[in-house]
Amino acid sequence: MLNGLKKIGVMTSGGDAPGMNAAVRAVVRACSYYEITPCAIYSGYQGLIDGKIEEMGPRSVANILSQGGTVLKSARCMEFRTEEGRRKAYEQFMAAGLGALIVIGGDGSFTGARLFQKEFGIPVVGIPGTIDNDIFGTDFTIGYDTALNTVVDAVDKIRDTASSHDRLFFIEVMGRDAGFIALNSGIATGVEQILIPEINKPVEQLIDRIRQSGRAGKGSSMIMVAEGDKSGSNIYQLADKVQEQLPEYDIKVTVLGHIQRGGRPSCSDRVLASRLGVAAVKSLKDGISGVMVGVRKGEVALTPLEEAIKQHNEIDPLLLEVAEITSI
Amino acid sequence: MLNGLKKIGVMTSGGDAPGMNAAVRAVVRACSYYEITPCAIYSGYQGLIDGKIEEMGPRSVANILSQGGTVLKSARCMEFRTEEGRRKAYEQFMAAGLGALIVIGGDGSFTGARLFQKEFGIPVVGIPGTIDNDIFGTDFTIGYDTALNTVVDAVDKIRDTASSHDRLFFIEVMGRDAGFIALNSGIATGVEQILIPEINKPVEQLIDRIRQSGRAGKGSSMIMVAEGDKSGSNIYQLADKVQEQLPEYDIKVTVLGHIQRGGRPSCSDRVLASRLGVAAVKSLKDGISGVMVGVRKGEVALTPLEEAIKQHNEIDPLLLEVAEITSI
Amino acid sequence: MLNGLKKIGVMTSGGDAPGMNAAVRAVVRACSYYEITPCAIYSGYQGLIDGKIEEMGPRSVANILSQGGTVLKSARCMEFRTEEGRRKAYEQFMAAGLGALIVIGGDGSFTGARLFQKEFGIPVVGIPGTIDNDIFGTDFTIGYDTALNTVVDAVDKIRDTASSHDRLFFIEVMGRDAGFIALNSGIATGVEQILIPEINKPVEQLIDRIRQSGRAGKGSSMIMVAEGDKSGSNIYQLADKVQEQLPEYDIKVTVLGHIQRGGRPSCSDRVLASRLGVAAVKSLKDGISGVMVGVRKGEVALTPLEEAIKQHNEIDPLLLEVAEITSI
Amino acid sequence: MLNGLKKIGVMTSGGDAPGMNAAVRAVVRACSYYEITPCAIYSGYQGLIDGKIEEMGPRSVANILSQGGTVLKSARCMEFRTEEGRRKAYEQFMAAGLGALIVIGGDGSFTGARLFQKEFGIPVVGIPGTIDNDIFGTDFTIGYDTALNTVVDAVDKIRDTASSHDRLFFIEVMGRDAGFIALNSGIATGVEQILIPEINKPVEQLIDRIRQSGRAGKGSSMIMVAEGDKSGSNIYQLADKVQEQLPEYDIKVTVLGHIQRGGRPSCSDRVLASRLGVAAVKSLKDGISGVMVGVRKGEVALTPLEEAIKQHNEIDPLLLEVAEITSI
Repeated sequence: MLNGLKKIGVMTSGGDAPGMNAAVRAVVRACSYYEITPCAIYSGYQGLIDGKIEEMGPRSVANILSQGGTVLKSARCMEFRTEEGRRKAYEQFMAAGLGALIVIGGDGSFTGARLFQKEFGIPVVGIPGTIDNDIFGTDFTIGYDTALNTVVDAVDKIRDTASSHDRLFFIEVMGRDAGFIALNSGIATGVEQILIPEINKPVEQLIDRIRQSGRAGKGSSMIMVAEGDKSGSNIYQLADKVQEQLPEYDIKVTVLGHIQRGGRPSCSDRVLASRLGVAAVKSLKDGISGVMVGVRKGEVALTPLEEAIKQHNEIDPLLLEVAEITSI
Repeated sequence: MLNGLKKIGVMTSGGDAPGMNAAVRAVVRACSYYEITPCAIYSGYQGLIDGKIEEMGPRSVANILSQGGTVLKSARCMEFRTEEGRRKAYEQFMAAGLGALIVIGGDGSFTGARLFQKEFGIPVVGIPGTIDNDIFGTDFTIGYDTALNTVVDAVDKIRDTASSHDRLFFIEVMGRDAGFIALNSGIATGVEQILIPEINKPVEQLIDRIRQSGRAGKGSSMIMVAEGDKSGSNIYQLADKVQEQLPEYDIKVTVLGHIQRGGRPSCSDRVLASRLGVAAVKSLKDGISGVMVGVRKGEVALTPLEEAIKQHNEIDPLLLEVAEITSI
Repeated sequence: MLNGLKKIGVMTSGGDAPGMNAAVRAVVRACSYYEITPCAIYSGYQGLIDGKIEEMGPRSVANILSQGGTVLKSARCMEFRTEEGRRKAYEQFMAAGLGALIVIGGDGSFTGARLFQKEFGIPVVGIPGTIDNDIFGTDFTIGYDTALNTVVDAVDKIRDTASSHDRLFFIEVMGRDAGFIALNSGIATGVEQILIPEINKPVEQLIDRIRQSGRAGKGSSMIMVAEGDKSGSNIYQLADKVQEQLPEYDIKVTVLGHIQRGGRPSCSDRVLASRLGVAAVKSLKDGISGVMVGVRKGEVALTPLEEAIKQHNEIDPLLLEVAEITSI
Repeated sequence: MLNGLKKIGVMTSGGDAPGMNAAVRAVVRACSYYEITPCAIYSGYQGLIDGKIEEMGPRSVANILSQGGTVLKSARCMEFRTEEGRRKAYEQFMAAGLGALIVIGGDGSFTGARLFQKEFGIPVVGIPGTIDNDIFGTDFTIGYDTALNTVVDAVDKIRDTASSHDRLFFIEVMGRDAGFIALNSGIATGVEQILIPEINKPVEQLIDRIRQSGRAGKGSSMIMVAEGDKSGSNIYQLADKVQEQLPEYDIKVTVLGHIQRGGRPSCSDRVLASRLGVAAVKSLKDGISGVMVGVRKGEVALTPLEEAIKQHNEIDPLLLEVAEITSI
């Protein structure tokens, strides 16, 4: 083994995402495959500080592949943002005999990981796990595909009732800074309008389009709104503004909320998580660290954590066009 | 054919429910089977007033068995509450040559149907279609079982994320006057507390139980709240009150909303709808009207519309006990 | 505690069914609630003979409510059919300090339970867990509703492809001696014919009906066949016979197989399992044994094991009529 | 409009796949958007020969986005393989005033399309719709992702029962010439072995690995077999051979069959179908034909039909490695 890497710690951090367990399983099994001892760190950075570290073997991750959430639990941790917190974490890390760290999470978790490597020379690798798909360096994050399918299932249900009553629905989906979920699930459910943080669409334009859609013979309409959309300060206020201008419509608001984070991961998320989990261990084994493993153009690719943190994935303008064309 | 019954009109009315299409299909096919012409009345009583009536045949209802919502559309109708509105409806009814009416809906829809029969001597039969399960005279309403499964799917997903983060979730489900959905889906998802309109549980007691549950070693907790619960004026205020008393908890609120009304009907709802659709036609054919068809203790049963409207199903106290025992 | 009942053993036995875990959880929690120590017996009667017995507490059954299969594992056991085997089981039972036994399973499992009580005076209670719904003394068995929904999901998918190609599909579902699954899922998916063990339908009649259905304008047709149907020695031979007579049809066969046993339990199965698990413990606590707990006409009911074993549930002829009428 | 393209015909051909309706919808709406009249051709090439052609508008494809199968129906057509058949098709094509043809299907359908363009100068564009993912020129075919999720759902259910009984399951999935479904769904469900047409794995090796897996402490095992695997002449014979060598195992076989073709399309398939439907119309509008539209490395790409037919996608050897590592 290069560098005599004997033990790798793995944790999940930040918001949970479906497929995190599949990634944990792949990390643990890849370690076993390469005769490295995998160690679970529970509850993210807080658990590292508190020394919640446990040796694992290939059987410890049996039957978690299909489970949502994360068996390692997750937590946000203020203490790790301080140098003192990271120092404590380092001491626990060394006490447990760990040689490297794999962090499954998003932007914020990678920022912590990068500092940890910089300050204490610990080799770290990041695996992108978040439903928002907003991480640079990978075409897809773990959990994103499952969240899309969850949204599509929910919106298909709402379409049933919208069609039965000729209603106008505003539906809020997750995505504080990124419109990936809203745009893709919006195309997939044939909603009439999609509002995302990346594009500023004035309310007047929205109202015009609803009227147009009514004239085109559509009885019901659905407007998909990303959490972070700037059109209204929030979706209820937006719906109120539209209701004022369109009193003839029966307007309803649904906020999909936390159901988007859970659920059994989709096939695609499980395969992605398995690939990235194996790739992360291989990378450490090969002496490469300070990177995030991702999939770009279909292939596993490494991106320096610094870049993954600084940059952002951008919405494909061709997709916006597809949304517009297919909803006429 | 008794009374020379040649044409039966069928409509869906009030809030839509999964399985309404299966009931429409059964009515249409049973009519064809007994050589009566089935006629669709679109958009409920409003459509009857507007003369939106169309002859159907067995093939007109192909492929709707598995669809959520209602292909006949539904609408609430103020005009039918006036004598003048009902008079117009009667004229359209006669002009279309209809001899009887089948109404798929809830309490409000049955009230209209009863008046229609009383004032104009039109034979009517009601079929209970609503997700709330609050109609007297049937153990189950069409749509209830599907809604329960939708809630359970959603709450299982929330449990994933609740467990991953040791959170306390308040989840609102439908049921303005009846706690059936909250109680049954609450047992099925193992929530820690269930708040329903039928029982007044003081906030203090709720908070005590959450503390107790924490001491019992439960990291995450879920509280299921029926829309119509009286504990707080609404679920957000209730969550705020609890947060004040339990600042150590990370509390989240999710309102499941309209996803509960839609979706492909469950097997049980499709079978129930098929049985009741056939039974409604048989009842009219046999000269019995002014009733609702339902299932009681496993068998089709007829209940006078008057009783179905006046009385209410009651919560089984043994179920409350099961909820308490299984969530310790 | 009545009779000084201090410890209850619980096992799952025979074919697994979704909801068994919910029943185990309810038994364990009800024991804890009544201050009896619950003990898991792993792998059914074989595990009892081998002394695989473990004390549990309310937290040991966390997060199993929504899981398919059985965490206690199941096995068929030839040894328990011998007196010597049961003697060994009895010794282990006493060595573990158990005072009563709850068996979750079907007919065969109850036969063993009854002998065990008879020979050694051990109080036993049975809980009906099987997807076949063929147990006398309960209107529904645990797992049946979930299996129905699994079949309906699968057949809806096959309908998509059948409709796209105007094909004739033969679909085999489980049910060696009972047609409950075939009949109910057949109504729910609108299949054109249903073949069940309880009714002998000659192949000629089947072929006539397919021809009739073709003349009625149906492009695709689906025939639902219960495993135990007597029309053909098996579904492939039956399809061959029909193909000979109807060469113009493109005939396909699908055997749904073991997917029918697994999966997350439906809401209805989880509630049923919770009710019966609690009722089983209550029954023992109250000194009543030698019975199966079931639900009849909506209420928990006790049936002597002897009766539950000897008699069988019968198909409702009205349901057969509904199937015929709604598929015209 | 370039070339005065006024009318485009669209058909689905060959085996149906989930998402075909989403592609039809996108073609129809894109035509309307660019003021070209879209025409449906029913039942594939046979329908073209028979002149089953119908003008459509944007509302004709309402509510089909979420439906499995194909509303245009599909059929295999021997007559189109003859010059005379294609001549008839050409005459109907011209009689309907069509200027170009879009074919949604697989290899075989594209071969017909290419001949049609070659012989009669009709501009054609292909859209890859098949669950097998075996078409060169696109990273994903429409229907593949949905089929994967269907397989994963089914195998998760089988895992429940396999784990409960410590059984060895052989599961056959679709893929006559290509192992994409088996490999990806096999990784996603954590099966112990994957047999695909691309790799020849001797039965002895298979048996060795099962024994190894048993020694590693795995109670149950699952072997995923693609239809076209060469190890045994069929899955039942393969299971028999293994049973002879491993009499201690309780071996079961499940053939997933036609459920893999149907079902509501996944989000990913709907988005892919929407993108490709729009791209096909744009391509014709821009005067480019004789190509298939696909997605390569995340972007829409055109591939000459000739190449799409001749070449094949290859299995990624890194994925095979991931399968091996994660199943230890």
